[in-house]
Amino acid sequence: MTPYELIRAKRDGGELAPDEIRKLLGAYARGEVPDAQMAALCMAVWFRGLGPAELRAWTLAMLHSGATLGLRDLPGRKVDKHSTGGVGDKISLCLAPLVAACGPVVPMVSGRGLGHTGGTLDKLASIPGFRTDLSLAEARAQLAELGVCMLGQTAELAPADRRLYALRDVTATVDSIPLIAASIVSKKLAEDLDGLVLDVKVGTGAFMRRREDAQALARTLVALASELGCRTVAWLTSMDAPLGRAVGNALELLEAVEVLRGAGPADVRALTLRLGGEMLLLAGTASSVAAGEQRLERALADGSGLDRFRALVARQGGDPRAIDDPGRLLGRLESRDVASPSGGWVVGLDTEALGLAAVVLGAGRIRADAAVDPGVGFTVLRTLGDAVEAGEPVLRIHHRPGADVSEVVARVQGAYRIGTAAVPRPPLFLERMEAAA
Amino acid sequence: MTPYELIRAKRDGGELAPDEIRKLLGAYARGEVPDAQMAALCMAVWFRGLGPAELRAWTLAMLHSGATLGLRDLPGRKVDKHSTGGVGDKISLCLAPLVAACGPVVPMVSGRGLGHTGGTLDKLASIPGFRTDLSLAEARAQLAELGVCMLGQTAELAPADRRLYALRDVTATVDSIPLIAASIVSKKLAEDLDGLVLDVKVGTGAFMRRREDAQALARTLVALASELGCRTVAWLTSMDAPLGRAVGNALELLEAVEVLRGAGPADVRALTLRLGGEMLLLAGTASSVAAGEQRLERALADGSGLDRFRALVARQGGDPRAIDDPGRLLGRLESRDVASPSGGWVVGLDTEALGLAAVVLGAGRIRADAAVDPGVGFTVLRTLGDAVEAGEPVLRIHHRPGADVSEVVARVQGAYRIGTAAVPRPPLFLERMEAAA
Repeated sequence: MTPYELIRAKRDGGELAPDEIRKLLGAYARGEVPDAQMAALCMAVWFRGLGPAELRAWTLAMLHSGATLGLRDLPGRKVDKHSTGGVGDKISLCLAPLVAACGPVVPMVSGRGLGHTGGTLDKLASIPGFRTDLSLAEARAQLAELGVCMLGQTAELAPADRRLYALRDVTATVDSIPLIAASIVSKKLAEDLDGLVLDVKVGTGAFMRRREDAQALARTLVALASELGCRTVAWLTSMDAPLGRAVGNALELLEAVEVLRGAGPADVRALTLRLGGEMLLLAGTASSVAAGEQRLERALADGSGLDRFRALVARQGGDPRAIDDPGRLLGRLESRDVASPSGGWVVGLDTEALGLAAVVLGAGRIRADAAVDPGVGFTVLRTLGDAVEAGEPVLRIHHRPGADVSEVVARVQGAYRIGTAAVPRPPLFLERMEAAA
Repeated sequence: MTPYELIRAKRDGGELAPDEIRKLLGAYARGEVPDAQMAALCMAVWFRGLGPAELRAWTLAMLHSGATLGLRDLPGRKVDKHSTGGVGDKISLCLAPLVAACGPVVPMVSGRGLGHTGGTLDKLASIPGFRTDLSLAEARAQLAELGVCMLGQTAELAPADRRLYALRDVTATVDSIPLIAASIVSKKLAEDLDGLVLDVKVGTGAFMRRREDAQALARTLVALASELGCRTVAWLTSMDAPLGRAVGNALELLEAVEVLRGAGPADVRALTLRLGGEMLLLAGTASSVAAGEQRLERALADGSGLDRFRALVARQGGDPRAIDDPGRLLGRLESRDVASPSGGWVVGLDTEALGLAAVVLGAGRIRADAAVDPGVGFTVLRTLGDAVEAGEPVLRIHHRPGADVSEVVARVQGAYRIGTAAVPRPPLFLERMEAAA
């Protein structure tokens, strides 16, 4: 079938043959199918969805459009975590070295921030000299030596996904569950994983605001990755407030280091332990999630997780001393507090709006090619459910000297809703999913 | 709003503001919006449709993306006919000069054949030397002098439609009623018409196979064109069999000339008179359709319609003697008859399949950039409802000497269904529609 016939068949609700999907995406990756046809097909998929066989074929086609990390011969179980993204989500930074310190190999390929959500690569890039553009050979050598690497999607890994994601981003076809699932799983399969833990965010700062949408995505992801041979567990976790207190690249890196020092905000620590416990269980390092969490707590207490992070920073060209030197990471900053207009409780927090306020400040980007300022950001002083006095600061803006932050202040004010009756903060852990045996 | 926001809004079922549509299509015509975004939007429109205000804005935006023929100052009423396309539809060739011979100005902009349907431009181009690429100035001068011109869509007329149609053609977004309506009406409005007659085909050889789809399209077209100031009448007519006996460019031209000579197949003559009668009524030349038909019959009888066609051919660079010389128009041909396998009646005729058989023969094209052979084609000997003896020919293939026509024969055989009980041929005229007063 021609691309035209495939578009028409999907548009009319038909099911595409796996082989046709494979040929189409291969041709697209090689530049033989124009963006316009792929855009029309993605919109048709947005309306019609993909069946399980179509979704597996789509995912494998993107995987096979490029190379994998090539870790099958490397000793040890390979596990990784993927988050669907949120505000203040710095879990990967502490999780990857901490899990690697307990035994498994963690070959983590991450993305950059876009829109209101931050990206692990930007946070790592706040360390002077840190290289995220490792070649596949460099990543393999580092994994053999150190058991962990943190890199960006290279041109070799799932190039069809790379091209397709850029297209979906401008054609309003990002928020399609099958297309999201194929994108995530193809990239993770390219890491040659034995096990994968998914952190599917739900709430005002998440891609999925409604619990049922997040459940549908998690269900699709778990089934797809499991069917394709990667044991997978998903956690639905709350993104109704930023994770931790820090929002902004270097600020979040420093908060992750605090967690590795055995301190840090309770939610960041708890989520790191839970997701890491799942990874140790999948890797066979621990016999239960609880046992896995205990093992990780020891690696926090004895400093081996932090040591592994320092080793990773050094191995990837960064100065490991920089993580002990906030001034060097952040540069010259001034701060401005945003005060609560009234006393009461924080009864609503539009976390997406906070993320977009951080973009206006310079901590994130809307356009994929925009630069970010690694140092600027927020400290969240009062979060969802907290009590607050009138005039008391709810959030501290860290900005460059002399910067006009009036729009940032207005956006932060708009994100907070102060009420006169207390509301409980929603639980962090909402639901666990794994594939049916 | 950005193109991205407009795609998302339409995708989610929202209504786009007229001004946003105008800006978007203007930017697209100037090449400032990528095809991929427009393809995604067209697919979203395929699923969600366009409301009346959106449709008017879309149509006007395409109209205003270019120039018009500039006929407002030319004396006389301007009327035209548009057909949604079929097999053997050569009506325009006899209709335009015949109506012009009765008084009104007929500024006819036509298209080329694509897929199973033929195109007026290809039929005219079978006359050696005939130019269809008139400039707007040439067309205006000819209309002032001769009252009729027949040309192709120039780069100046509705360029947004030109670009968009090429895009829709490869992205499976052609068959969307609002997009079809906007395309047709924008081009017809660019002719500065006072009145428009639409021939909306229904049946096995039509774009719309189902009566209700054709009704929906006709209703949309009549409402849209009327609202935008062009008095419009639509006829739903049967395309359950080819129109007339000739299929193929020069063969159809010769059949149209037969009609202008006062002869020709009854259905071609009847449809020419009916549509022409409507045009004379719209132009104010006749006080009723019946009176208009009588006026046209006089122009057939006195040869003034044929004279006008000869004048048009000469004016546009063709040799008018060629239309009296079939050998010169057709070139060297051989023929091959396709026989009925059994006796009975033609109870089914897949007219689209016949049209595609003609494409295989070389008389049409699937790809927009393909060449056609002007001389080859079919003579339909038995049509829907006709009785036939076993072994008697149902269709004659006119092909180049030595050509292998086995696939054409097989396709023609597959298009005919012979049964043992007579079925009546459906009426040609199904339904008339005009805008509510």
